[in-house]
Amino acid sequence: MAGAVPPHEADPGTATLAAFAAGLRWEDIPRQVRHEGKRALLNMFATALAGCREPAVDKAVAVMSPFSGAPAASLIGRGERRDAALTAFVNAMAANIHDFDDTHPPTIIHPTAPVAPALIALAETEGRSGVDLLRAMIIGAEIACRVGNAVSPGHYARGWHITATCGVFGAAGGTGVLLGLNAEQQVWALGNAAVQAAGLVEALGTMSKSIGVGNAARNGLLSALLAREGFSGPAEPLAGARGYLAVACDAPEPGRLVAGLGSDWELARNTYKPYPVGVVLNPVVDASLEIAGRPGFRADAVASVELTGHPLLRQRTDRAGVRTGRESQVSAQHAIAIVWRRGQAGLDEFSDAAVAETMNAGRPVVRFNDDPARDIASVAMTVRMRDGSEHRAEIAAARGTEGNPMSDGDLERKLVALAGHSGFTGDVAALADAVWSLDQLPDAGALARLAAPATRNPAQ
Amino acid sequence: MAGAVPPHEADPGTATLAAFAAGLRWEDIPRQVRHEGKRALLNMFATALAGCREPAVDKAVAVMSPFSGAPAASLIGRGERRDAALTAFVNAMAANIHDFDDTHPPTIIHPTAPVAPALIALAETEGRSGVDLLRAMIIGAEIACRVGNAVSPGHYARGWHITATCGVFGAAGGTGVLLGLNAEQQVWALGNAAVQAAGLVEALGTMSKSIGVGNAARNGLLSALLAREGFSGPAEPLAGARGYLAVACDAPEPGRLVAGLGSDWELARNTYKPYPVGVVLNPVVDASLEIAGRPGFRADAVASVELTGHPLLRQRTDRAGVRTGRESQVSAQHAIAIVWRRGQAGLDEFSDAAVAETMNAGRPVVRFNDDPARDIASVAMTVRMRDGSEHRAEIAAARGTEGNPMSDGDLERKLVALAGHSGFTGDVAALADAVWSLDQLPDAGALARLAAPATRNPAQ
Repeated sequence: MAGAVPPHEADPGTATLAAFAAGLRWEDIPRQVRHEGKRALLNMFATALAGCREPAVDKAVAVMSPFSGAPAASLIGRGERRDAALTAFVNAMAANIHDFDDTHPPTIIHPTAPVAPALIALAETEGRSGVDLLRAMIIGAEIACRVGNAVSPGHYARGWHITATCGVFGAAGGTGVLLGLNAEQQVWALGNAAVQAAGLVEALGTMSKSIGVGNAARNGLLSALLAREGFSGPAEPLAGARGYLAVACDAPEPGRLVAGLGSDWELARNTYKPYPVGVVLNPVVDASLEIAGRPGFRADAVASVELTGHPLLRQRTDRAGVRTGRESQVSAQHAIAIVWRRGQAGLDEFSDAAVAETMNAGRPVVRFNDDPARDIASVAMTVRMRDGSEHRAEIAAARGTEGNPMSDGDLERKLVALAGHSGFTGDVAALADAVWSLDQLPDAGALARLAAPATRNPAQ
Repeated sequence: MAGAVPPHEADPGTATLAAFAAGLRWEDIPRQVRHEGKRALLNMFATALAGCREPAVDKAVAVMSPFSGAPAASLIGRGERRDAALTAFVNAMAANIHDFDDTHPPTIIHPTAPVAPALIALAETEGRSGVDLLRAMIIGAEIACRVGNAVSPGHYARGWHITATCGVFGAAGGTGVLLGLNAEQQVWALGNAAVQAAGLVEALGTMSKSIGVGNAARNGLLSALLAREGFSGPAEPLAGARGYLAVACDAPEPGRLVAGLGSDWELARNTYKPYPVGVVLNPVVDASLEIAGRPGFRADAVASVELTGHPLLRQRTDRAGVRTGRESQVSAQHAIAIVWRRGQAGLDEFSDAAVAETMNAGRPVVRFNDDPARDIASVAMTVRMRDGSEHRAEIAAARGTEGNPMSDGDLERKLVALAGHSGFTGDVAALADAVWSLDQLPDAGALARLAAPATRNPAQ
């Protein structure tokens, strides 16, 4: 079977990846990876519900709806239906807009947002089964992350928004699986994706970012639909001399496209964020929560805070003066202050209102000690009180990192919290149940419809 | 006025380009440039009529029509209507598919295919005047070519399909002009375009190529429509440290975005192809036609051919054994043989059938002499006959190059020839008249509808 291609014999090219996608059976996917696919989907619905009423999403729906065909698929949390292409675009935007979606640590790709919405929209439109959807989603994520592996770290460092640029390959390959494309057609689907891979790091923090992620889903979907009708492309769109890898990366490693294919699963490395902050801040939030819970701890009695962590912690989060919710997601000073005021770290704690609150009430003085030997997921926090006493917390592996993953229960609680945050009027428990039993669902459209009911709240 | 920004005072950034686009009046555009805009449009209609029934276009229309909104705009030469976004996509594909469209020599961008179809579709949908369309098209081409200047020659050499990657900026900026965006909104439109700039040289010669060109038109249109509704992007999507220029080119020259803005017009450099061949072959076709017309010349009495030209002529066109119409567009041996058999060099002469004809009947033996001092537009041809006599032809500047441009009459004859080739059922003369008098047309939609009638022939 394709799943058994030995790593050292595989040709590091698109054809190998395409044959793998075309040939893989559900039985070839390890049980743990199948389950990770469900976890990724649950998390995707959570973040899409949280993001589906952001101004950028509202504007995109308003501007692009006149260019939608007949309504055939469900916009998550909006109570509206559009054609599969626009639905894929909008749901991908929503799922990624807060950067609260999943992360593939080796590449920092958010794999599910650009991939799953394309597949869910098509599955709803064409009435595919849950197991077909899940298989396609797992292979799509695999392809996106493997393309990402082959261009990392140079690609992102050069300025390409890797979730968007590599996501389109995953959406194309995953759609190809759902459509039952053969290996040759899968090469074409990936070629059609290669000419649509786009997105810039420069756009992060702006509405434009979301176009790249939405396009990855929409254009991946269309790439495979075109390939099914014989719309053909280059023989080696990825690993060729002028294939995407070489053009978009100064030192690509084509061998990583296929190394361990079918045995090492990229989705098995997937992680989920407990807090809507830059990943380097996760251990700081953990430490702040831990100290906040100690008997007798009073934030207004703190004199100063000392953080010892990887140098990236200081470089990315030493931001005492942030003024917007978005900026606050990478401010250690705000994160500590708001956690100590509210005892939690959800989306509401990184809103413009929360930032105004810590700006008025004061943020702690924080001293950063660089320790390059530390893992990025760890931190030591020392809190000096005005009375001379100290609180110390040592976080070895922050929640949501590979060493301390979110449990299934954590992910369900995240879904419930974000559905509540958005005022979701649907049945959250039924949605979660449908995800956990997706491989037994005869019609994946039922899943999409469970996530469709409108949210009550406008953007946070 | 914006048109008078002195080159050395202009900040080499998106804001300057955006302010120029937002502020430029029709009166600021030189008469020659206005006329060049019409010539470019006439040529675009010609090549779109020739390409509108290619298999890739048929497949794209079939696959993507379910994702079109209400029909509001005309597909050139197909007798069908779709929403403005899909219409822009399809017409751009058709206009460029044979690479028979216009060329901006400094960058090798085909500027009109990715830009004009977006504007024509919107003008038809929203009922804009001909002068507004022409102004927008001229500025759109200007922006596409200036972005191209700033990333040339490294960008194409790296493997980016420059017509697609830079075309989306032109389509966005041009659409912004048609929508009356202010300078800030124009920056957003260009930012929304920057995250959608894509396309690979690797895809040339395959159907996938046309996705990039179609997307440039469609996505540029949407970029500006989104910007109008406040969908915002980065402040410096082009010339910033991580802006598009730096990410997609190893040695960008941001100053070229704005040098001579309003005085040096890129469209004034535009060229048009008389023959559907690689530009380096143009002088060879000219020489072959000249010799074919001499009294007493008989192709079956030729012993051998000698070509003295720029080394690129040999490198790109010494291909005696080509087997497909597409390959034949860069084969000197086929070009000479078919011109001598048929006395002309139109699309039919570079079809699969024509290639079979010269393969069966025989192609001349050609010897190439490299002369690096020669202009790429020149060639010396010596034909040795079996009886020992010789024919010599010296082409100093091939037809269709900057030194020997196609006349207005040449372009009209090209339109008539390609409309005939495609079996266009519309009124060609009325279409040409509408282009020449576009600045007096109250409703640019009338122009679009003149090009809409179906062609009779399937793909060549």
